Parts: sequence; structure tokens; C-alpha cells
Amino acid sequence: MARRKKIYEGKAKILYEGPEPGTLVQYFKDDATAFNAEKRAVIEGKGVLNNRLSEFFMTGLGQIGIPTHFIRRLNMREQLIRQVEIIPLEIIVRNVAAGSMAKRLGIEEGTQLPRPIVEFSYKDDALGDPLVPEEYIIAFGWASQQDMDDIVSLALRVNDWMSGVMYGVGIKLVDFKIEVGRVWDNEFPRLLLADEISPDSCRLWDIETGQKLDKDVFRRDLGNLTDAYTEVAKRLGVMPSNVTHRPKPTLIN
Amino acid sequence: MARRKKIYEGKAKILYEGPEPGTLVQYFKDDATAFNAEKRAVIEGKGVLNNRLSEFFMTGLGQIGIPTHFIRRLNMREQLIRQVEIIPLEIIVRNVAAGSMAKRLGIEEGTQLPRPIVEFSYKDDALGDPLVPEEYIIAFGWASQQDMDDIVSLALRVNDWMSGVMYGVGIKLVDFKIEVGRVWDNEFPRLLLADEISPDSCRLWDIETGQKLDKDVFRRDLGNLTDAYTEVAKRLGVMPSNVTHRPKPTLIN
Ligand SMILES: Nc1ncnc2c1ncn2[C@@H]1O[C@H](COP(=O)(O)OP(=O)(O)O)[C@@H](O)[C@H]1O
Ligand SMILES: Nc1ncnc2c1ncn2[C@@H]1O[C@H](COP(=O)(O)OP(=O)(O)O)[C@@H](O)[C@H]1O
Ligand SMILES: [Mg+2]
Ligand SMILES: [Mg+2]
Repeated sequence: MARRKKIYEGKAKILYEGPEPGTLVQYFKDDATAFNAEKRAVIEGKGVLNNRLSEFFMTGLGQIGIPTHFIRRLNMREQLIRQVEIIPLEIIVRNVAAGSMAKRLGIEEGTQLPRPIVEFSYKDDALGDPLVPEEYIIAFGWASQQDMDDIVSLALRVNDWMSGVMYGVGIKLVDFKIEVGRVWDNEFPRLLLADEISPDSCRLWDIETGQKLDKDVFRRDLGNLTDAYTEVAKRLGVMPSNVTHRPKPTLIN
Repeated sequence: MARRKKIYEGKAKILYEGPEPGTLVQYFKDDATAFNAEKRAVIEGKGVLNNRLSEFFMTGLGQIGIPTHFIRRLNMREQLIRQVEIIPLEIIVRNVAAGSMAKRLGIEEGTQLPRPIVEFSYKDDALGDPLVPEEYIIAFGWASQQDMDDIVSLALRVNDWMSGVMYGVGIKLVDFKIEVGRVWDNEFPRLLLADEISPDSCRLWDIETGQKLDKDVFRRDLGNLTDAYTEVAKRLGVMPSNVTHRPKPTLIN
């Protein structure tokens, strides 16, 4: 494919100019970061797995009527997406206390929450993605009240569906993060699910054993991250053949 | 287990008095009926599969906060449930046109609907479970407007979650039927998901091949029904060992 203009390089993905106006190519790197990028590694095969898994989840969510940025997968590491104006929030849905919430509240990790909780972090690496009350979001104009109502409904539907997907293959969906962006269709704003859904952005625990099958394996040095993601992909029948044994695609940047 | 008082015998299940007040034992028979019981057969192993599958779905739905009548499975064919006042409706959610809807509207079976549609049949075998507008339900007092709003929300959540469960194992949830009942907790009414969720009450199509994995296999003579239900159970990791090869449990009635 011809050399494309790089628009943005983030911690886990690169965005290139897409073939049509209003589209982008999202390239999944093998880079893993944690703790606001203080911990870093290159995990061979991660990008390929996340590209396929995000395709799988976004496609299924599209089928139940959740609008997403996903258009189609282009190759092992790239997918074509609609360009959106990202709302600068990490939208987090939690079913079980874990990670920062467990720590912040002194709740034991693994405690079932009384109901799913939706929370928001302001997406800003320099500030460490601070948790923000909905009041801040409205006051600073990052999103309108209507946007927030729509985002909460959308996030809870994603939670119900993703919980089902995972339950069916013996995995507990503990929590996950999504991003949402705005597109304009004939002057009307619409919200789309953007970014990615993958084991990088979810906490996934095996129901039987409690084994972690997500980025905590990297954060906490619990083993091989690609093996964990491969296990998720295998259970869902989303297994790119020989991921880890292929020669690395050549980076174009 | 001691002989228990039979409360009701339906087409597919028998209800017995439970061990505690307010509980019932739901026994899953092997009987299959279709077209308002004009077509009948005994399908060895069906009851065992539906008992396990309904346990699996109700348990998962309970975990996402949908209140259900399910307490616990007792044995291969029986489960302990909370007794409810059944609302006399079949609550049907459709994602894809099929069965009676496709026929009634002259839509080709398999047509994706613009969004999930919730519809209601008045549960009355003598009348053939006629489709009824929500107006009738309110006017005849089968349920209140508040009940109906709660039922629609509940049905759509069940749809999102069940669609996810099925998508994760390569199955399209075409449509399904649920029943809902009322319990009284300290004078306050609450709605619970009741009856069963199983391939008897869902349309399930393999995503790759379109193969039917539900009661249409019986309705339309498409093959062995137990094989179809076993395939669903296997994919979900809900496979009672040697279902079809065990000696039949002795009926106690
Ligand atoms: N459809 C989209 N249109 C525009 N930007 C997007 C879209 N989807 C995701 N993004 C943004 O692209 C970036 C993806 O790369 P990533 O490595 O995750 O970056 P970051 O390190 O900023 O999280 C994110 O900043 C995300 O907000
Ligand atoms: N928790 C419950 N409490 C009371 N009745 C229930 C409960 N769950 C299901 N039922 C009823 O029990 C019967 C189950 O047996 P089934 O063979 O399905 O009967 P039917 O032929 O009437 O559909 C149904 O009539 C259903 O409405
Ligand atoms: Mg990111
Ligand atoms: Mg019935």
C-alpha cells in the first residue's frame, strides 16, 4: 500500500490519513505501556490480536445497533475507520472493583459492585488521565448533558453485550474503557464508539480459575501477554493463524 | 426426593410445590410441541439440555443485575425457582424477521430488522397466543403501564446480553420469547424473569452456515433436535456428560 500521511502516533496505535475524506487508517502497534507509560515493552503479536479482536467486538456491537467508527479491517495490523472528533474522556464501566477504583476506595479487588458503575477520566497523559465528576465535563464543555446521557446509555449497552460475549466463553468482564467521538451527518452531530475494544482496554478474568487474560498480565508481570490475548481470541473463534510465528510486517513510518 | 405435589403441568415443563413457601420445582420434560400443540413428540434428552441451558442463561443474567426466578438447579431435570404471579404475556424480542412475523408481514425470513422489536402475545393456548397491542394489555389490566415500561427495558437488556453470548460462539440470536412474573417483597411488587430461556424459546442460527440450532429443527423437520441443542450447549461449555446415553430418570408423576 502506498505511503500514507501519519496523523497521530499514540502509545498503542498510529493513525494515518485514510483513502477517503473522513476516514483514517488505524494501525495497531505491538507497544505496551502501563502506569501512564512509565512501564513499556514491545509484545510481539499484540497489535495483530487487538486489530482482530477490536474488529470482532465493533462488528458485533454494530449489529445490535451501536454506531461505531469501524468500517473494515485492511490487513493484519490495520483497519479503516471513520474519523471522529474524539471526546477527551476515558469512559470506564466497572462490574467488579479492580485497579484504580479498588485502590482509591480501599475495596478488595474482586468485590462485585452493587450495580455497573460508569465513570470518566479526562484523557490527558500529562495529567495522568484524572478521574472527573460529570459536573466537570459539562462545566468545561468537553461534552453536553445530552452527550453524557447518550454516552451512559451506550456504555451500559456495550457492558451488557460484552458481558454476554465473555460469559459465553467462560470469562468475567470485570471492567473496560471505551472512547466516543462525534461525527457530523448533514449538520447533525452523532456519537460513535471509537478507538478500540481489546484485552488492552478490558479486564477479563477466567470464570473458573480467576486467571487474568488482559493487560494486567503485563502491568503486574503475570506471564506472557500474547498468550493471554491469544487465549481470549481462541475462545471467541477469532484466531489469526500463526500470529506469533510470522515475520514481523515492516513498519512504514 | 420425596413425592411432591404437582401444581401445574404444561406443554414442556411441570411445576411442583417447592421445599419452602414461595418456591416451586420446575421439571423439564422431553416433550416437544409446536403450532399450538398440534405437532407433538418426545425428544430424548431435550429436558436435560434445557434445564442446564436455562440455568446457564438465568445465572448470567442475574449477574448483570436482571432479577430472575432461578434459585438453583436440583438435578438433571429440575430446578428450584421462586414462585411468581405470571403476567400472561409472551414477550418476544426480534432482531431478524422469522416465523410468525415474517409470515404476517410477508417479509422474507432472515431480513434484518431496522432495530430490535419487542412484541407481546396474550398467553392463552385456547386462543393460540394471539399477538396483542400494548393498549390491550393496559386496558385489560394484564399489566400496568409502569410494568410494561419495565418489561420493555428488561427485554432489551436480555436481548443485548443474549446477543453477546451467542455472537461469542458464532450464533445469531434471531429472536426469543420470555415470560415475566410478579413477586411481593414487603408489600412492594417486583418483576422477575421467569419460565425458561433455552433453544425452545429462542431462534438461533449459526453465523457461518445459517444452520438452525433451535426448535425450528422440530417444527420444520430439519433433523435431530437433541443434536442441535447439544451443539449450542457444547459451544457454551454447558455440556452435561452423556445426556442421551443415560437411562431415563423415572417420572415421579
Ligand atoms: N475514529 C477516530 N477518529 C479520530 N481519532 C481516534 C479515533 N479512534 C481513536 N482515536 C484516537 O486515536 C488515538 C489512538 O491511539 P492510542 O495509541 O490509543 O493513543 P493514546 O496514547 O492517545 O491513547 C487515541 O488518541 C484515540 O483517542
Ligand atoms: N416462577 C414461576 N412461577 C409460577 N409459574 C411459572 C414460573 N415460571 C414459569 N411459570 C409458568 O409455568 C409453566 C411452565 O410450563 P410450560 O410447559 O412452559 O407451560 P405452558 O404449556 O403453559 O407454556 C408456564 O405456564 C409458565 O407461565
Ligand atoms: Mg489509547
Ligand atoms: Mg411454556
